[in-house]
This record gives sequence, C-alpha cells and structure tokens, in this order.
Amino acid sequence: MTARLPDLTRVHRHAERGSQERTRLDALLDDELVGTLSTVVDGQPWAVPLLFARDGDRLLLHGSTGAGALRHVVAGASVAFSVTAIDAIVVAHSTFDSSANYRSAVLRGTVHNLRGPEQAAALDALSDRVLPGRTREVRGSTPKEWAATLAMELPINEGSWTYKERTGGPSAPDEEVDVWCGVIPLRRVAAVPEPAAWSVGPVPASVLAVTRGRE
Amino acid sequence: MTARLPDLTRVHRHAERGSQERTRLDALLDDELVGTLSTVVDGQPWAVPLLFARDGDRLLLHGSTGAGALRHVVAGASVAFSVTAIDAIVVAHSTFDSSANYRSAVLRGTVHNLRGPEQAAALDALSDRVLPGRTREVRGSTPKEWAATLAMELPINEGSWTYKERTGGPSAPDEEVDVWCGVIPLRRVAAVPEPAAWSVGPVPASVLAVTRGRE
Repeated sequence: MTARLPDLTRVHRHAERGSQERTRLDALLDDELVGTLSTVVDGQPWAVPLLFARDGDRLLLHGSTGAGALRHVVAGASVAFSVTAIDAIVVAHSTFDSSANYRSAVLRGTVHNLRGPEQAAALDALSDRVLPGRTREVRGSTPKEWAATLAMELPINEGSWTYKERTGGPSAPDEEVDVWCGVIPLRRVAAVPEPAAWSVGPVPASVLAVTRGRE
Repeated sequence: MTARLPDLTRVHRHAERGSQERTRLDALLDDELVGTLSTVVDGQPWAVPLLFARDGDRLLLHGSTGAGALRHVVAGASVAFSVTAIDAIVVAHSTFDSSANYRSAVLRGTVHNLRGPEQAAALDALSDRVLPGRTREVRGSTPKEWAATLAMELPINEGSWTYKERTGGPSAPDEEVDVWCGVIPLRRVAAVPEPAAWSVGPVPASVLAVTRGRE
C-alpha cells in the first residue's frame, strides 16, 4: 500500500482511470457533500472546504459575504474545485500493490456571483441537496438572510474538469500468495437522528428519508 | 440551510469555531484518510487529492514520481493541504439556520522529499495508516517498488495551520417553532470484506480490526 496507494496523480499514465465520462462525474458530485475550493491569493495557494450542489451543468457554492478570499474568488480569480470519494480499501498481496478505490474530480474555472432570484434559488437548491425536502417543511428564507450569504456558480464545461477513479479488486499477483486479499468497502451512513431539546413533533419526512431503519 | 450551511469561511468572525487546539487537529488528521493538496502552477490553482498519515509533527504524503505537479511541489512550491470531516447534518427551524457539523484544517508550508530509509519508513507508515497491521502480514516492499514512489513530509508547525469546527445541535430559535429539529450524525463504516478470487486463507487481523461484526 505504498507506491500504489491511490494513484491520484497518474491519470496520464493509467488511461483506464482517466475516464471522461460525464455520467461518472455527475454520480460523484451527487454522492458527495463537500469539496475543496482552491485559488491563488498573493501568489500563494489558498484552500477552503465548501458544501456544494450540482445543478445540471453547474456547481452551486455558498459562503459568507464577509469572507475576503471568497470576495477575491467572485471578483474573477481562477479556482480549482476538488471532490473526492474513498469507496474501498484494496488489500493486495503486498503493501506496494495495495491501494484504495476512489473517485475524484477537479473542476476548473471562475465562479459567478448569483444575485436576486438566482441567488435565492441557488441557496434553496443547496439546502435541498444537504437534506432533500427540508425546504418544504420550514419557512422560506428572508431577504435579510439572503443578504448575508454569497451564492456562487461554477460552470461544468467540456474540458474544464478531470475525473479519475480506481474500482474493482486488487490486481492479480505475479508471485506466490498465501494471504487473504480483497477489498473492504467503505460507506457513509446516517445514524439515529437526535432531536433538539426544543424540537416539536415527529421526525419529519426529510430526516426519515436519510435515516430510515435507524429510529 | 442556506447562509449557515457550514460556515467554513467564517473563522475570523466565529471565534468559537477557530479553535487552535492541537489535540483537535490531530484527532481530525487521525480520523480522515484523504486530503486535498493545493499549489500554484504557472499562476493557476492546482489541486490533487492525496492519502496522508500524521506522524507526530508532520504529515506524510505520497505520489508517483512521474507526476509533474508533485515534482514542482517537492522542488519547493508552497502548498496548502486541506482535510475536512462532515460529522452531522444540523436540522434547524429554518433553512438559513440549518447547517452541518464539520471539522476542517488547512496546513500550509513546503514539503520535503524523503529518501532512503526515511522514504521506506514513511511509505510503511502510510500503509499502516490505511490498514493498520497489514505491513506485518505481507512481504516488505522492494527497492524497485520504493523507487517508483515519491514520499513527502509536510511539517505541522505552530502557526502553519488553521482548524475550524462546528459541533452540537441547531441554535435555539428566536421565533415560534412547530417542527422537528435536531442533528443527523454521519459516520463512515466498513462493509463486509470481499475476497479476491485468488485470496488464500482466513480474513486476517488487519481486516478484522476494521470490519469486526460484519463478516
């Protein structure tokens, strides 16, 4: 599990991992909640994790209007947005051949600051990405609440993104093996929901949908 | 869950989230398997996900010796390494007050290319981070295998990192509420291990340790 720890840098040499399939990109973006936004500030790398939602051919992002580096970003600085899922540990006959199954994408471009109805729609879309249906269970946001928030859009254009993955089991050994080898799938699960002290009423549909079977 | 989707950018305004406690940083780094390495190449942001292992006051990283941008990094380019855990969905009385519990860190600096015995030790440490104990179940790596891999060290120095988190339940509303509110904890779990067709012998201790109860 040394040299072949996830070969996240080898897209040019492992063509089978460099799939450009847009459907796989979308599946990854629809599976993960958070990515890392990277940009350059005063010549130095700058990074921040952000929740995101894919909406067709764009990523929706949000942040505080008070965050200086995000103002730099909405002013037109180039960004790279990185999203990674670790799907399994690959247990091979040597540490060198061991690895991890992963899916990762980097999207490049510049973000566009959304305002007015576009902003409101984007923030609702982000909410419904994190907990689908919750926007129908609570009051809408107010103009004052919207004003405190940056909503941003990063286009998903052909050629603006790279997608890499490793799937499947360990590669077959070319030496004698006397140990167990295989994969350990990893999953993210929701645990039993915990009500706030001042919570009113039963667990709602939005929460049940992600925790069913755990109440 | 709009303006208060994880306020990952608000460390300066939410001091309670800007904890500098090294123990919390270490706990995060010891919980997560993958981070995003950001650097600047030709003035543009560049990012790649990498497995990592904390070893005391340094992060160990690895990559292919053929990866151009990593050669740029080991030549001394500034980097930011970002690690994020999403621990819970916070379900508040409004989408604006909804959020996510998270822990995140960004470590800044330059990486050092490890060679010889330091490299071998770092690669074994990375292997044992991903699947503790596996290095004792299989043969050691060979010099040829080591030669194909970059092993890098990023120091964890005082002042070189920032740590942010949100914990706990939704904030208490200052308006009448008639809906369920609370948190949905999220966890990463290992599923039933799947042997390769050519696997030999029982599930080993290293795999049992992360999947116990699931065979």
